[in-house]
Amino acid sequence: MAADQLLLSAVSLISALQLGYLARCVGRSRLKHNISPPTTTGHAEFERTFRAHQNCVEAYLPFLVTLWVSGLFFHEGLAALGGLVFIFARQMYFNGYVTSAKNRLPGFYLTLAAWLTLAALGTVGILHHLLDEYLDINLRKMLFKS
Amino acid sequence: MAADQLLLSAVSLISALQLGYLARCVGRSRLKHNISPPTTTGHAEFERTFRAHQNCVEAYLPFLVTLWVSGLFFHEGLAALGGLVFIFARQMYFNGYVTSAKNRLPGFYLTLAAWLTLAALGTVGILHHLLDEYLDINLRKMLFKS
Amino acid sequence: MAADQLLLSAVSLISALQLGYLARCVGRSRLKHNISPPTTTGHAEFERTFRAHQNCVEAYLPFLVTLWVSGLFFHEGLAALGGLVFIFARQMYFNGYVTSAKNRLPGFYLTLAAWLTLAALGTVGILHHLLDEYLDINLRKMLFKS
Repeated sequence: MAADQLLLSAVSLISALQLGYLARCVGRSRLKHNISPPTTTGHAEFERTFRAHQNCVEAYLPFLVTLWVSGLFFHEGLAALGGLVFIFARQMYFNGYVTSAKNRLPGFYLTLAAWLTLAALGTVGILHHLLDEYLDINLRKMLFKS
Repeated sequence: MAADQLLLSAVSLISALQLGYLARCVGRSRLKHNISPPTTTGHAEFERTFRAHQNCVEAYLPFLVTLWVSGLFFHEGLAALGGLVFIFARQMYFNGYVTSAKNRLPGFYLTLAAWLTLAALGTVGILHHLLDEYLDINLRKMLFKS
Repeated sequence: MAADQLLLSAVSLISALQLGYLARCVGRSRLKHNISPPTTTGHAEFERTFRAHQNCVEAYLPFLVTLWVSGLFFHEGLAALGGLVFIFARQMYFNGYVTSAKNRLPGFYLTLAAWLTLAALGTVGILHHLLDEYLDINLRKMLFKS
């Protein structure tokens, strides 16, 4: 089992390390602007950094689930590639958001595109398997007659 | 491997799509009440919508873990069913919370019931396997003498 | 499949139950200080309790991913042990944070040590498998000549 889903596991690990890194950025922003926990307001840059991280945390779970479902039920390599794009987009989003609220948008749209792709691949993969398993309908055969 | 845990994967995917949908509801509430990020306050309805989503994010991880553990170690179909109830309950909670803080309660209690059920099934399943694996005690045989 | 990764699943379940318990602590702190949702401020102890829980939620995903990756690709027993230390450290962190912001620090540093250990084991495990799979380089053989 260990060597299965190696690519999905590698991408998941990279994304976990990224979340750890972003949490550290928030901590450093606290020090820079002298904002001690549990306070979460007090300086515009810190507030943007804080929310950028929060947003990444929120986005992370739907990301991981769609990464794995699309990887297991559609295509592992494609899912892993989509995952790398997502991670890159999240970094763009975070870095942009720290400078200004408007600058979060390019990364946000790329995140969205990557996530919707993973979600679509996962949905197709799951439907394909559900139809095959419970209704004995094989989508691939129907579409390609082979 | 791909076709294993099809039901758990399908339920996980639905819940990930739901989280994406709820995040979008928060975004629309921002537009409706003219509250630009990173601000998270300013209008009572937005604040309820924002917290409803946050609460769903918080609840999501313990949900996914208990869904999979109960599905893998107790019974996949039952766990998937519990998962669907949980997802439905979360939507009730969210929709209710948007209208008033009090209206979140019915969905909240149903969420709690679904989660506690999954957690209980998962705990029984894990204990059964741990006892069997490490102490060679078979609970099922002891209880049903068959 | 069900009986595989029994230890990782057991540790994951314990951590999910812990998150549920911490959420309940926040609810009880709301009652104690008379702070109704969706408000998240109003009393210093509640604000610390609230943030302690939020921080645990944030930390939970990178934790779960590194727990599983290190368990699948490095060593299950070691990863499970690291996971138990992490869960214990998070409880220390939470309990400390409720009393004062400063008292969160011992638990915080232990959390960090446990997480970095899991992340390091996971990274070594993934690199080992990636090199073996795609470049046909076997780290273990190179290091131990056996």
